[in-house]
Amino acid sequence: MFSSGFHKDTMKFTPPPASLSTPLIIPDKIMMGPGPSNCSKRVLTAMTNTVLSNFHAELFRTMDDIKDGLRYIFQTENRATMCVSGSAHAAMESLLCNLLEDGDRVLIAVNGIWAERAVEMATRYGADVRTIEGPPDRPFSLETLARAIELHQPKCLFLTHGDSSSGLLQPLEGVGNLCHRYNCLLIVDAVASLCGVPFYMDKWEIDAVYTGAQKVLGAPPGITPISISPKALDVIRNRRTKSKVFYWDLLLLGNYWGCYDEPKRYHHTVASNLIFALREALAQIAEEGLENQIKRRMECAEVLYEGLGKMGLEIFVKDPRHRLPTVTGIMIPKGVDWWKVSQHAMNNFSLEVQGGLGPTFGKAWRVGIMGECSTVQKIHFYLYGLKESLKATHPDYVFEESNGYH
Amino acid sequence: MFSSGFHKDTMKFTPPPASLSTPLIIPDKIMMGPGPSNCSKRVLTAMTNTVLSNFHAELFRTMDDIKDGLRYIFQTENRATMCVSGSAHAAMESLLCNLLEDGDRVLIAVNGIWAERAVEMATRYGADVRTIEGPPDRPFSLETLARAIELHQPKCLFLTHGDSSSGLLQPLEGVGNLCHRYNCLLIVDAVASLCGVPFYMDKWEIDAVYTGAQKVLGAPPGITPISISPKALDVIRNRRTKSKVFYWDLLLLGNYWGCYDEPKRYHHTVASNLIFALREALAQIAEEGLENQIKRRMECAEVLYEGLGKMGLEIFVKDPRHRLPTVTGIMIPKGVDWWKVSQHAMNNFSLEVQGGLGPTFGKAWRVGIMGECSTVQKIHFYLYGLKESLKATHPDYVFEESNGYH
Repeated sequence: MFSSGFHKDTMKFTPPPASLSTPLIIPDKIMMGPGPSNCSKRVLTAMTNTVLSNFHAELFRTMDDIKDGLRYIFQTENRATMCVSGSAHAAMESLLCNLLEDGDRVLIAVNGIWAERAVEMATRYGADVRTIEGPPDRPFSLETLARAIELHQPKCLFLTHGDSSSGLLQPLEGVGNLCHRYNCLLIVDAVASLCGVPFYMDKWEIDAVYTGAQKVLGAPPGITPISISPKALDVIRNRRTKSKVFYWDLLLLGNYWGCYDEPKRYHHTVASNLIFALREALAQIAEEGLENQIKRRMECAEVLYEGLGKMGLEIFVKDPRHRLPTVTGIMIPKGVDWWKVSQHAMNNFSLEVQGGLGPTFGKAWRVGIMGECSTVQKIHFYLYGLKESLKATHPDYVFEESNGYH
Repeated sequence: MFSSGFHKDTMKFTPPPASLSTPLIIPDKIMMGPGPSNCSKRVLTAMTNTVLSNFHAELFRTMDDIKDGLRYIFQTENRATMCVSGSAHAAMESLLCNLLEDGDRVLIAVNGIWAERAVEMATRYGADVRTIEGPPDRPFSLETLARAIELHQPKCLFLTHGDSSSGLLQPLEGVGNLCHRYNCLLIVDAVASLCGVPFYMDKWEIDAVYTGAQKVLGAPPGITPISISPKALDVIRNRRTKSKVFYWDLLLLGNYWGCYDEPKRYHHTVASNLIFALREALAQIAEEGLENQIKRRMECAEVLYEGLGKMGLEIFVKDPRHRLPTVTGIMIPKGVDWWKVSQHAMNNFSLEVQGGLGPTFGKAWRVGIMGECSTVQKIHFYLYGLKESLKATHPDYVFEESNGYH
């Protein structure tokens, strides 16, 4: 028999690292970038409940509550409504790897960073990836989408509802119906939009959607809601091959979440503390009501737009009809060092004034109206912090509607 | 232009679900199954810190602390030491999908449920999967492994160090060296073993390992530590194709965790609250020291074995040299309804007396000595709760060393 190294007196370890002997100090911050947003105390406190395993009724009951809440915020009756144990990227990837098999054609409408990611993922899974490209500040028209679908005849169309890299809102009404006329499934990224603008999964005939817990919903990151239409579920059930990723196999995951009227089987250990937190975030949304939540964020956005205008700051998405109220790109005026402003805001106001990403990188700051930061009071604080930081770092900047800085 | 449904006055939503209008009540429980275990208050409280995004120095500093802590508990100097944002299943799958390409041969030593899962995953990734099978209560010998490696000439060998489905400890000393003589990489599942028994990644020449945050470490589930040797990293860097899963691409993930001396690029949003909790769990381990942690768990196991013996209960793994101290399978005596006992223990003592899984399903309970449950006081409480529950549900059971019940 060879040794297991299992002798009390012969253990010999390198010493513990010094870095872990200091206390963990995480300052309070006002998280007004495009997510993660601040969570409510109720949501944060929920995480301190006892970690539960997959054998406890309280955990399954909480997962059932979450399914109810998700059906409400997605406005769907889909039974296959659940969470992926991972970030929104994991959810995006879970949908692509379940709906696509080697050689399947997918059409991806690219005008921001999330669609680019979808291209990368679908390519890795061996799909035949086709794209249409559009400017980051204008949505695709129904006509453009129709022409592309007719040309490529894809199995799936991937569309981003609200792009957090630009602050663009892509209208969805009619797209599902269009897709279904061509026997195509509609996959939607609603990470930054859900609970900030109306979203009707069933009415709009959306086949697969995911959102981000840590965005508008005000829950911590690490667990991601998804929903699948019966049509999409049929496609998954009729795959020629098993989906490549066991962890994301939506037939196994949906069983585990109790979606399919089958006895539950163990699949993996869910992050119960994140489950508790998400449940409380959804309960808060249910208490206030979707309509009030959305109206509140639209009102916040109006206050923000007005305040920015008064400071001579422009918005990345010019046409107000195409603006996502939950994420706004603020154009960086000529001659302004955006990073200095962001640093000043963080150091002096504990305020996150986040820079751009993808199409807005170096061009705009991005402000989020998400989670607990969706109050007029917070918007005023943001405007104040941004103004003071601009002033402190760029004393020459003129705060007027037509200041010639752009 | 088609409509975005974005009109304040035309929103029409189905009503919120009633299930979310009740308070979330999660009772305190003593989690003495094979994980998740109870976390300390310090660990739970760490989760209530402000959610941070990937642009905050405090988050990156905390991730650096975690890397230090993981190198310590894995006993490695591997730079590619990081966490996968997902459960231990995700980590298992991340290693397999990075180390294997279509047609690559992998040898999996199967004697419990985790190796079975590895077979399922590797098969989905298109690997040429070979197995050797062994009984669930006896480890593979070095000779058996050598013969199998010689026969199959695999690219990787997958071995479970401590199997939580059986309570079996697989010795590892010498296996890495054996593998390397055949140009084979050694992948180890240390989910249930790490910090419960000695583990020396570098000395034992292990190429890839993952553990479970919610097991012995006493952190919440949802984030999973892994480490990769330079040799394994070379294999990944020299792949003919990109790894199929973007989310788990260890070149991208390792960059994000600052492992490779490159400028960091955004990859996905980490679960910052789980990061904070894991950091605190690792700090607690560093403060006590690995040696003390392991000794404490070995002592707890001895108390458990003795107590079970006195009650006439047998252990699933007969040979004490092969027992994993952190998970013990307790044979269910003839005529005993294990589920009734478990239910009674939960209802009366808030004590988790978990049943079997895989090879122990219906045959044994499984008790964990993990996280905050690794004290002699907790072991005594477990023995007391189990005895009282057996007594209450099976009044005829005789609590003697030779009671003829098995």
